[in-house]
Amino acid sequence: MIKSPYLLFLGDAADSLAAKVAQGIKDWRPDMSVGQYRMDGCNADLGLADLSFDEAVAAGAKTLVIGVANRGGVISAAWQEKLIEALEAGLDIASGLHNLLRDEPILVAKAADLGRELFDVRIPSVEYPIATGVKRTGKRCLAVGTDCSVGKMYTALAMEKEMHARKMNATFRATGQTGILITGDGVPLDAVIADFMAGAVEYLTPDNDADHWDLIEGQGSLYHASYSGVTMALIHGGQPDALLLCHEPTRKHMRGLPDYQQPSLEELRDTALILARVVNPDVKVVGISVNTQHLSEDEAVSYLAETEASMGIPAVDPFRHGAARLVDALEAC
Amino acid sequence: MIKSPYLLFLGDAADSLAAKVAQGIKDWRPDMSVGQYRMDGCNADLGLADLSFDEAVAAGAKTLVIGVANRGGVISAAWQEKLIEALEAGLDIASGLHNLLRDEPILVAKAADLGRELFDVRIPSVEYPIATGVKRTGKRCLAVGTDCSVGKMYTALAMEKEMHARKMNATFRATGQTGILITGDGVPLDAVIADFMAGAVEYLTPDNDADHWDLIEGQGSLYHASYSGVTMALIHGGQPDALLLCHEPTRKHMRGLPDYQQPSLEELRDTALILARVVNPDVKVVGISVNTQHLSEDEAVSYLAETEASMGIPAVDPFRHGAARLVDALEAC
Repeated sequence: MIKSPYLLFLGDAADSLAAKVAQGIKDWRPDMSVGQYRMDGCNADLGLADLSFDEAVAAGAKTLVIGVANRGGVISAAWQEKLIEALEAGLDIASGLHNLLRDEPILVAKAADLGRELFDVRIPSVEYPIATGVKRTGKRCLAVGTDCSVGKMYTALAMEKEMHARKMNATFRATGQTGILITGDGVPLDAVIADFMAGAVEYLTPDNDADHWDLIEGQGSLYHASYSGVTMALIHGGQPDALLLCHEPTRKHMRGLPDYQQPSLEELRDTALILARVVNPDVKVVGISVNTQHLSEDEAVSYLAETEASMGIPAVDPFRHGAARLVDALEAC
Repeated sequence: MIKSPYLLFLGDAADSLAAKVAQGIKDWRPDMSVGQYRMDGCNADLGLADLSFDEAVAAGAKTLVIGVANRGGVISAAWQEKLIEALEAGLDIASGLHNLLRDEPILVAKAADLGRELFDVRIPSVEYPIATGVKRTGKRCLAVGTDCSVGKMYTALAMEKEMHARKMNATFRATGQTGILITGDGVPLDAVIADFMAGAVEYLTPDNDADHWDLIEGQGSLYHASYSGVTMALIHGGQPDALLLCHEPTRKHMRGLPDYQQPSLEELRDTALILARVVNPDVKVVGISVNTQHLSEDEAVSYLAETEASMGIPAVDPFRHGAARLVDALEAC
């Protein structure tokens, strides 16, 4: 578990898109960060207070979270100098970068020396069990997609926000690097050993209060040839009571697979239900989350209305119109 | 790739069941081993020549293959002494044990010293790629089961043997520890990192001659909550042209999951086809392999006849009656 509050490290971000992890933390956990740290040449700005490491520690910060992609996939000498300063000031460091903090001997030695922790959230820190499939208490909602990167994490976070506003008992459960940095905890499912994937999801979503909802971050797609095994493990490990279908209607082919087309929402619904019923015969598909960012408002409204009419369940873009109707559907479940 | 021929290490096997990996190598690759090595107190006997390490090397052996489960899950001092002697005699060592050769510092040092190799087939030795889903040449057959441990490996090996007898162009592709030791090569799929599972299967079954069949060893089951993600990756990475359904009709519940029942063969067929069509719209279910070991001959014959009549495709127990009719079905495909 990564200690909060955070100082968000924007480094020398080329643009605001490079800092999207930091932006996600600010959007979804606005009280989690005391400020941002920007190096010379940084072109991103979250609108948070610019703090030195010492100022951040004085304001209560416990962890420097690397909220930016690094250029060229390496931790540069300039970054390393700053990260060492952060450790010396009293901060742990958390990162979702592909190249790991633990592979930087200077950082490892300095952290050991000072008693600080380095968190590489891309790598599991737990030995997960083999899944047992035993029925758990509490309720679980899983977002499944017609493709990768169609808005599954956004949907689950937007629903959590709406549910908390309604004083409902709900927890977003992160299964990817960005989600783990946003919430400080979770399972980096794509990095788990095959035999333990479903067990890792069971570990992430244990027995809970009868009225509690886990909102499980989806990954991949049952129809994505590269990552479908991860999705399958989420369905069987997650033991969902409710499924949400996530879709991006303008995509020309499956992400990264030019020879493959997205399934229809009907196909996704039917296949996901067959597989989810193995672990929960009562599972229901309760709503559809459509990412309409490439449609005009008129196009989006008419696409959503048509989809809702043909599928017979609420179809919403939670970014454009809020997650309220998806939460209504979950409450009715 | 493990170098052959082998000397099969039976150690101090408590009984012949403990030596089932060695038995599998002897059954399926009878020309691969020059003999067996038995310690004092060994209660297993494959009927091969008992050779010393020096005699085995003189007979051409390249690798000592540990074909037996170790007692208590540790490499005992008595075993270690023998394994060091084997290295000194000139043999590499290959093992599928849970506790790894590489975690035994004395073996590691001795092997390095002598220039010998230690193979832990439980651990991937390759950095597998992400699956691309690109259509490959050649043909692929995958066995999928109603449950784990219903005879998928046996079925694929029996078909390979029959196909080779018919001079067909076919290769068994191992995806588990026993299969890898039997054939000297393969992918330990249950130990692969989630994101790379389907890519590992693509790597295992690359482009091939138009008339070549890969006979891919199945793992887990789409209906097994613990391991279904591995099965899913086999279906999408394997890009099968032909599926075989494997079943054990007397099982009371899913293996290791007392709360779960096996699906019917109809359910398995329909679900596997939906998922396999994502990567190959022309995939067909060509036959059924039934493990009838717990049925009498009469019961087996009538179960197979009923299954064949209701499913409309050949239903065979390849152990009892040979794999010929399954290969006929593949040839007709």
